Order: sequence, then C-alpha cells, then structure tokens
Amino acid sequence: MNITKPTLILDEAKCKANIAFMAEKARTHNLVLRPHFKTHQSLEIGRWFKDVGVHKITVSSLDMAEYFAEEWNDITVAFPVNILEIDTINRLAKKITLNVLVESVTSAEFLLKHLTHSVNFLIKLNIGNGRTGLLPSNTETIDAILEATKHSDTLHFIGFLGHAGQTYKCRNKAEILKTHEQAKATLVTLKNKYKAQYPELIASYGDTPSCSVADNFEGLDELRPGNFVFYDVMQVQIGDCTYNDIAVAMACPIVSIHKDRNELVIYGGGIHFSKDRIEDQGKTIFGIIVHYDANGWNDPIPNMYVKALSQEHGVVVVPPTEISNYSIGNLIYVLPIHSCMTADLMKRYNTLDGNDITMMVNH
Amino acid sequence: MNITKPTLILDEAKCKANIAFMAEKARTHNLVLRPHFKTHQSLEIGRWFKDVGVHKITVSSLDMAEYFAEEWNDITVAFPVNILEIDTINRLAKKITLNVLVESVTSAEFLLKHLTHSVNFLIKLNIGNGRTGLLPSNTETIDAILEATKHSDTLHFIGFLGHAGQTYKCRNKAEILKTHEQAKATLVTLKNKYKAQYPELIASYGDTPSCSVADNFEGLDELRPGNFVFYDVMQVQIGDCTYNDIAVAMACPIVSIHKDRNELVIYGGGIHFSKDRIEDQGKTIFGIIVHYDANGWNDPIPNMYVKALSQEHGVVVVPPTEISNYSIGNLIYVLPIHSCMTADLMKRYNTLDGNDITMMVNH
Repeated sequence: MNITKPTLILDEAKCKANIAFMAEKARTHNLVLRPHFKTHQSLEIGRWFKDVGVHKITVSSLDMAEYFAEEWNDITVAFPVNILEIDTINRLAKKITLNVLVESVTSAEFLLKHLTHSVNFLIKLNIGNGRTGLLPSNTETIDAILEATKHSDTLHFIGFLGHAGQTYKCRNKAEILKTHEQAKATLVTLKNKYKAQYPELIASYGDTPSCSVADNFEGLDELRPGNFVFYDVMQVQIGDCTYNDIAVAMACPIVSIHKDRNELVIYGGGIHFSKDRIEDQGKTIFGIIVHYDANGWNDPIPNMYVKALSQEHGVVVVPPTEISNYSIGNLIYVLPIHSCMTADLMKRYNTLDGNDITMMVNH
Repeated sequence: MNITKPTLILDEAKCKANIAFMAEKARTHNLVLRPHFKTHQSLEIGRWFKDVGVHKITVSSLDMAEYFAEEWNDITVAFPVNILEIDTINRLAKKITLNVLVESVTSAEFLLKHLTHSVNFLIKLNIGNGRTGLLPSNTETIDAILEATKHSDTLHFIGFLGHAGQTYKCRNKAEILKTHEQAKATLVTLKNKYKAQYPELIASYGDTPSCSVADNFEGLDELRPGNFVFYDVMQVQIGDCTYNDIAVAMACPIVSIHKDRNELVIYGGGIHFSKDRIEDQGKTIFGIIVHYDANGWNDPIPNMYVKALSQEHGVVVVPPTEISNYSIGNLIYVLPIHSCMTADLMKRYNTLDGNDITMMVNH
C-alpha cells in the first residue's frame, strides 16, 4: 500500500470483533440486531454482518436505502419520513420490506394518499434526546396517527422507535446506564400501553453507548446501534469503548514541522476528518495520534493530538520530547473524533492488508 | 426544479457580482488576481473568472490542480508541498506552469532530486496566522533554501507567499484593516530584503477578509482570495460582506415540527453543511434561515437559525410567531456558515434558473 495522501485505514479484525460482540449481545438477550449502516455505508462491510446472522438493517436516508437494497430486503429508514421523496419510497417499497418513521398526522395522511405499495411504519418517540419524535405524553397525536392508518392496505403500524441520543452527553458507564434505564423505561411503558390493541408491535431502540454498555434490555425487541462497528474518540470520551476498540484511523502525510512551537502540519483537514471535536481538560481535540507498526496502530501517543483543522490542513501538537522523531514526508496515524462523519467524507477504506473497500458515493 | 432533498442553490448573479468586484479591485491596484478555487471547485464557475480576465489560479491540493489543469495553465498549489505526491507533481509540471510552496530545506532537496520537469516555488511565510510557513525572522532557513536551489534547472524561486488567516478572528472592518496592514508589512519587508538578489520575485498575498476590505496593497504583486466567490455567514461575522452578498444557500425539506419547543427539524445535517459553526451572543449557530421568493433568497429571518446538526438532521430554532407558517414537506433556505466546506460536501450546484453545475468529485 503506497499512501501518498490522507487515507482511511480499516483494521478488519477490530471491526469484525466489534460486530461479533454486538451480535452476541443481541443473541444473548433474544433481541433482533438491526444495525445502523450509516456509519460504514458499505455493501462489503455489510456482508460481515450477514456472516453473523444479521438480516435486517437501519439506514438514515432513502438514498442509503436504495444503495443497500441491492443486498438487503428489510430496511428501516431511521429518519422522519421525507414526504417529498415519495417516488423513492414507492420504488423501494416495491422491491423490499421498507419501514419508515412517522411522527405526524400530516405525514401519515400524505403516505396514505400517495403510497402505491405496502410500507411499514414506526412511530418515532422522543425518549429524552429532544431532537425528533413525539413526546410519549402526546397520546392524542399517537392515537390520531393510529386511527388514520388502522384500515389502510398500504401503511402498516409495526411499533415504536426511540433513539436515546442523550447518552452522548454521558462521560462514564454509570451515567450511560442511568440514562439508558430511563430511556428504555419510557419506550417500554408506551409499548405496553398499546400492546393490547396491537399485540405484534415492537419497541426498537438503539444508540451505541447504551447498546455497548447495558445488559438489561427487558421489554425491547430490537437494537439499532451503528457507530460501534468502528467506534471513535467520542465514544471513548463517553465511556463505552476503549481506544483499542477503534477500527479506523486516518493516515496523513506530514508536510510541515515547527519545532519552535512543537507542532507539525499534516495533509488532512476538515474535508477529510469532518470538523467534529471534543473538549477535554480545556483542550479542543480534532483527532488523537497513535503509535503505528507493521501490525497496525495501537495506543495513543500521550499529549499528541490534532488541535485545529482547516480545509486541507491539520495542526498537530507534539510533545517536545517527540518532535525530533518526525520528518516531512512521514505518515502519522490519527484516530477520528467521529468515525461516521470521517467515513462519509473519505468514501473508501484501505484495510491493513491493503484491500480497497468501497462505499456508497452519493447521498 | 423539483427539490426533494438537501440541495445547494447558487445565485449566479450574486456570484458574478462578487467575481467582478474582486477583479475590478485587483485591476485598480495593478495586482494579479490569482483566485483560490478551493471554494467552488468547479470548471464551469472557473470560466466566469476567465470572462473578467483572470489567467492564473490557486488551489489547495494537487488533485485539485489536476482537475483544473484541463482548462488552466498557471496554477499555484497553496499548501506546503507534499513530497509523497512527487509523481503527480511531475505529471502536472509537464503540462502546465506549476507553482508549489516550499518551507524547508528537506522539501527543496527532495524536489531537486526528483523533479523531471520545471517547477516554480514560493517560500511560504508565516505572516501572523501561525499555521504553516517560516517566520520572517528565520532568514537562516530562507537563505539555505535559496542557496540549495539557486543553480537548479528545475526548481525556480519566484517569490514569497503569505496568508493572513488571522483576519478570521476579526469582527469588524477596522480590525481587519489593522491586521491586514501588519501582515502586508511583514510580507513586503521580506520581499524588499531579497529584491536586489532576485529582482523578479513577487509577494503573493490573500485572504477574503483583507482583500474584500482593504484598499492599500502597496508592495504586493498578487492576491489569492477564494471564499469571496460565495461569501458566507462566517464572513458576515468577520465584517467583510453583508448577508446580501452571499451567493449560495441550502434548500432543505422540513421533516418534523415541534411547536411545543418552537423548533423544526430539516433534512440537512453535518454531511451536507459541514459542522462549521459560529458563536454569536451566547448562541451556537450552524446556519441562518432566509426569506425566499420567486426571485431567490433575501434577508435573514430574525432569530431563526440552525442550532444543531447531526449526520442527516438539522434542528432549527423558529420564532414563536413564525412557527405556524411552516408545514412538513416545505423547503426552507439556509445560508451556510462556511461555504467552502458546504460546497465540498454537496459536490454540485443548482442555479436559481434550474441549471446544474458540476464540480470536482474526488480530492
């Protein structure tokens, strides 16, 4: 592998271990694993999930559903249904089992009027994240959606879906578990309320922190974590993985060395990493530099990190004792803050063995 | 134009007015305008610069140079030369006048050894930005680079280049002008120091805030602003343009409405906008919503802005008096914080007239 510019490297063994871990967890708890494929966006990596018995997936856009519909026939689009894309919805619904999210009577009525093929829907609940979804107390709207759709031949209610994204504010396992228990209880309570009326309804739940750390999923039916396939620095900060679990790193050429201020500049900027960042002990961090040898990367180099990103440049803080180890033209390896966004930008992976793995190009 | 998902809209008239403004300014001051094309990354938009007499351009990567070398034959890559891409450098140098940035003896010696065709170089100076470049006081390294290259048949010194990126910290015209004067003086002083030795050497300067606002460019030879082609919310905050100058906006479908918290959710997230943001009066802002009519967009809607972005979602704060004006399936128009990054992500433009303008796809 001759790396000459910013390149996203995938440690296939770590990635497959992450997949096996989550598949085993779902199996142990008798849950369907419906992993979120927005993180890797790759048919080839998707096949690694088939190898451990996964049959159903989650995506975040209809374009992504069309890409994966080549090899998957049960797809949930975990995003409030965009009614402007009704043509895509109908095209997909003709081909696969398509599950969409509804959170308003407006959207339900639009679908009832315009669907040409059967589509399942879940009602999106706000179980604490505060981004999208109906408040569980809003049974008026929930009942109105169910009433509007109950005799439909095309639009079928299959359950409630929640995303406990508020776990991203946690900073250790205890906090994640506490947040998880509250979010889960909210979702399960609502499921139980409607169970007599809809005996088959499911409760779909999932975010990487909860699914990685928790061991109580009682009352839930399926899990939809996504990021765990690669993990990243943000997940380490949240407290649900270790640096050693992170399955992707960016290889970046050093183009400029500044010994006077203990910094070096890499080819690798916001258009490669994304501008996601974490705050840690008063520092803003856009990436963590790791040791690298013939077997791949391992531990972070203490106090060595990306402190700023512009369009193509990354500025790296280097410990004074380390700076003389680097020369212009060397590569350094950087763990991304948010692997989903970095993968989306890079559009391909190179494995440690030198294989090229493609992903979805348009979204 | 049938917009169904996040779409980058270009107001061609505003864009051409921005181009004409900067071309006229360069002409008035007898400067070469060598615009930075990393903002628009489009051959078609590039031709609008040819129409106003521009012959030379700047780019930020060798890949971008290869893309533009189809139609431009004098290109500066304003990035510390990445010696790992020597094959691309030689391929380009065979075809066009290629100008690269050198800031170390290491890079100069590598090029001397490996160049197969003539390349010009500028020495990159740190004129206050503190990202890349030699400190002007470091004449030892400058002299060593000049000494190493002075008899070369392939590597030709043509001048000094500085980027006063510190203007991005300014918040009004007076601050920009003060910063500009200091940065310009640093660059011109060094140019004058070496002028006897290299009578033809140039001083290349440029950043959108300085070039937009200043009227004293004495001692400089060329300007390299880029962002001005579109401007954006960040430039309004810096103080070098008005909202009315911004030539791009994102059209985004509304997918979810939350009257209880005066927010709506759009299809349009970090993978469309980038996660660039500004802080303004205690608020974090990822985009500004504008009025829109048949002629395009105009003024911002007061107190209506994108407060958060996840991968595909944007959360929009709406004034309580406005929220009933919006329905699921409507489009809203959002001025991006950082147009270079948004364009890089979107990979195409739709003009107000419904024309599709393509740009470079790989970088």
